[in-house]
Amino acid sequence: MNTKFIYDIPTKVYFGENQLSNLGKEIKQYGNKVLLVYGGGSIKKSGLYEKVMTELIKEGLEVFELPGIEPNPRHTSVNKGSDICKKEKIEVLLAVGGGSVIDATKFIGVGAGYDGDIWDILTKKAEIKNCLPIISVITLSATGSEMDAGGVISNQETKDKIGMFNPLMRPKVSFLDPTNTYSVNEYQTACGSVDILSHIMEVYFNMEDDLFMLDCVMEGLMKTVIKYGPLAIKEPDNYEARANLMWASSWAINGFVMGGRMKAWSCHPMEHQLSAYYDITHGLGLAILTPRWMEYTLDETNVSKFYQFGVNVFDIDKSLSPMTVANTSIELLSDFFFNTLGLDSTLGAIGIDDKHFEIMAEKASQGGTQNGFKPLNKNDILKVFRMCL
Amino acid sequence: MNTKFIYDIPTKVYFGENQLSNLGKEIKQYGNKVLLVYGGGSIKKSGLYEKVMTELIKEGLEVFELPGIEPNPRHTSVNKGSDICKKEKIEVLLAVGGGSVIDATKFIGVGAGYDGDIWDILTKKAEIKNCLPIISVITLSATGSEMDAGGVISNQETKDKIGMFNPLMRPKVSFLDPTNTYSVNEYQTACGSVDILSHIMEVYFNMEDDLFMLDCVMEGLMKTVIKYGPLAIKEPDNYEARANLMWASSWAINGFVMGGRMKAWSCHPMEHQLSAYYDITHGLGLAILTPRWMEYTLDETNVSKFYQFGVNVFDIDKSLSPMTVANTSIELLSDFFFNTLGLDSTLGAIGIDDKHFEIMAEKASQGGTQNGFKPLNKNDILKVFRMCL
Repeated sequence: MNTKFIYDIPTKVYFGENQLSNLGKEIKQYGNKVLLVYGGGSIKKSGLYEKVMTELIKEGLEVFELPGIEPNPRHTSVNKGSDICKKEKIEVLLAVGGGSVIDATKFIGVGAGYDGDIWDILTKKAEIKNCLPIISVITLSATGSEMDAGGVISNQETKDKIGMFNPLMRPKVSFLDPTNTYSVNEYQTACGSVDILSHIMEVYFNMEDDLFMLDCVMEGLMKTVIKYGPLAIKEPDNYEARANLMWASSWAINGFVMGGRMKAWSCHPMEHQLSAYYDITHGLGLAILTPRWMEYTLDETNVSKFYQFGVNVFDIDKSLSPMTVANTSIELLSDFFFNTLGLDSTLGAIGIDDKHFEIMAEKASQGGTQNGFKPLNKNDILKVFRMCL
Repeated sequence: MNTKFIYDIPTKVYFGENQLSNLGKEIKQYGNKVLLVYGGGSIKKSGLYEKVMTELIKEGLEVFELPGIEPNPRHTSVNKGSDICKKEKIEVLLAVGGGSVIDATKFIGVGAGYDGDIWDILTKKAEIKNCLPIISVITLSATGSEMDAGGVISNQETKDKIGMFNPLMRPKVSFLDPTNTYSVNEYQTACGSVDILSHIMEVYFNMEDDLFMLDCVMEGLMKTVIKYGPLAIKEPDNYEARANLMWASSWAINGFVMGGRMKAWSCHPMEHQLSAYYDITHGLGLAILTPRWMEYTLDETNVSKFYQFGVNVFDIDKSLSPMTVANTSIELLSDFFFNTLGLDSTLGAIGIDDKHFEIMAEKASQGGTQNGFKPLNKNDILKVFRMCL
């Protein structure tokens, strides 16, 4: 296959401390009426809300607010935001928070130009026509939403969680200050690290690529997360650790490492079912699923990719047999998730049984995993879910 | 040091074969009057000129032409281009060729808005105020000019070669088709590979960084060049080899790997003197200089960086002493340049003696090497030049 793609990632990033003085002028490029979107109030506790408001007021902007975005953001919150945009003629959106807040903001921006329920868009009954310009201040290294073109929204009534990409939703400007993640607790830091790793692994595990260069970049990003995730847990105020996780998080999913790789993702569609039904943290679901998916997927036809992963990411002795390296890499990844990062290792441990597996596997297989690294149908997914019990 | 920087690389890239059908519509976004800039005519031989013209005509664009840009592009050619822009009210520039053509085009775009000689800008007698929008079709993997904000221009009269950066000069859209580099000969492929490696090494050798992640990315890019440079020489039509070199070339210098690293470059300012005085290929000069600069620079204070380079890029046994690994890495790099890539290894071999060393060292030290990885004054540079004889 001759690699072919369009690279188009124009997001401007202010990286580092004390860059917020640029916030006002960046927003003003796009308009004066701003909707500030945020979550459960942690930005008020941390003082970030105050800092942001100071900049907005200094610039004379007219600010509206939508607090209360949920960790797995709901379509009802998105609708609420879009309604404010329509009523108040909002010109620009400012998301301050983690990936959930930015994801919700993306669809608020889309909904502002759509006369109906955002769920129509997510279920493809209507198309994305436009999106208000989005500026973000990120407070968690995980989803990479600050530099990517996608988002995931949940519908509590139907128990659906749907992801969607559109270049119109990519933030224009994002502020990445590692010190804004100092207050992220151990558990969320661990889950964020898993999420970053998973974004890379979903692309890395692919047999049809000829851009070795991007494999090297992905291995570097994975090594970065494995090195700094545990350090950030141990030393929450370690700038170097937080900075590396933060920048790796953006580059894991902004589209660069994909090159022309068009394979469907595997663990994400499965996890979306878990968090749709049980509202668990996305990264925790991914940690439990990923090693089982690897075990289920590994065979003679793809062992070379696992071997490359083991040698280049986990530094396993390259003279060992490919299958030994492959199996060791899965063990080391499990050890990283469950011992080093300290996450629960089974669905049972977090109170999930097989009650909804059938319907979840049905939905996940429609999410596109059929066209993944190893094509997975409903039955395959059921087996992976059972391996996680 | 807490890393802090602004990331802003909005260039859109069409990567791969048969993407030229997008050329016309991309140009049209910026205007209808186009100046097509190219070099010595190799694009006519290869058929690329014809393909480009077909797209421009199809879109109904009004095309003016400036052929004859030199390999080390001269300020006189830039002035010629800027004059055409002023006279014909050119709205957008299309560079088709290698880095020299794109570099020249950048300054043509700047000169179009300046009432005087472009050399005033390069010698900082005047400032860059604006630049016409630039679109590029690259035919050589080397300078990375297709995605970066800089360029280097020579003045044959004063024997000066000056590089300058300005975000206004960054191409809006670039077309990277690896098959357009199939006709690049062995020597130019070798020199291009050295240039890419050098761009990375100039940033990589730095003791004041805390973005391990970018070190990993740079190591990946360097491994890519070392793997595919020789393959592209052996098999000029190898898509995978050409694609990896091409994309690595852009990312070596577009600014991403720099993060907040602000150290001056070392080998580039020295090489610019060599090619200013002797009009040699930039990559050849870099190949001769770099290992000597490394030998001259290596000491106990910076051996850890050389060790990291040796272990992660050349896969040298990490249990060896740091100094052994460091010295071995220099040997392996020399071996790569002079044996694997087959480049001449001394200035003597290409007919250069010490006649102009004094003035060249004087000029190079003004180029900023004083603030490099190892600060170099005129005397240091003289010594490095002599090591190359």
